[in-house]
Amino acid sequence: MKKTFAGLSALVLAGAVASTTFAQDDRAIKAAVDARQAHMKLYAFNIGLLGGMAKGDIDYDAKTASAAAGNLAALAKVDQSRYWPEGSSTLELGSDETEALPDIWDEGSDIGAKAMDLVEATTAMEAAAGDGLDALRGAIGPVGSSCGDCHKAYRQSDE
Amino acid sequence: MKKTFAGLSALVLAGAVASTTFAQDDRAIKAAVDARQAHMKLYAFNIGLLGGMAKGDIDYDAKTASAAAGNLAALAKVDQSRYWPEGSSTLELGSDETEALPDIWDEGSDIGAKAMDLVEATTAMEAAAGDGLDALRGAIGPVGSSCGDCHKAYRQSDE
Repeated sequence: MKKTFAGLSALVLAGAVASTTFAQDDRAIKAAVDARQAHMKLYAFNIGLLGGMAKGDIDYDAKTASAAAGNLAALAKVDQSRYWPEGSSTLELGSDETEALPDIWDEGSDIGAKAMDLVEATTAMEAAAGDGLDALRGAIGPVGSSCGDCHKAYRQSDE
Repeated sequence: MKKTFAGLSALVLAGAVASTTFAQDDRAIKAAVDARQAHMKLYAFNIGLLGGMAKGDIDYDAKTASAAAGNLAALAKVDQSRYWPEGSSTLELGSDETEALPDIWDEGSDIGAKAMDLVEATTAMEAAAGDGLDALRGAIGPVGSSCGDCHKAYRQSDE
């Protein structure tokens, strides 16, 4: 994942080859923002089930929990470099369009390391979720922390 | 995937355990529809790049093509059973909310087989996409056909 994010600019260039006009650039950026928001929605859909089970709001079921955890781990491993073209932060698009802070693209941004944290936490969850409710509960903290750490650093606060 | 779709009702039951009121059922169905539409958007985002390269609108780049194809294959393998609770077709929700035809849930529905077709086509694309533009072009037909076949059978036509 580090490599993925380090190679962001090159990939963004490659992905933007067809964007020869401003309107096309706009469309490419809109598509990227839509895609990353869709991806976040899929995280939430799967974490919602696992979190509901951890809290006891949803009855634990090993098969369903495993499937959701496997999905989460697969989603975390998806190459997301094309989601984050330069020029797609709140600074350029406004907070109605995106909450992504420009810090994501700053030199010294550790978003690659944070993405790797999510891969690790969801891979551990994938291994644990089918092993009973206690195992699921033990694995959910790091998943939540990983989400929260990245949001805290790189997502505009609602306050 | 066949198993996944065959086990739909059981999984839907498991996922709906917390839905003890009508309002909660509504929210669960809305979340499922949102999730499947988000998932479709991620297919489109990745197919858009590969299709653009196949058509020559976007310069071929082995690394970017491989990443998009790997994403597609990973997304196709995601367990999508919780996306399709009963009661979430156009019949119940109206075509403003979803284009999913009730035939998806009919006895004799072959949506599981169609989902498997997409896994096969995207897995072949994953193997081919980094091997040059001709290989990518050879693999894109089955991916497009798989999308189209399922949409034709199970998505409301715009006509």
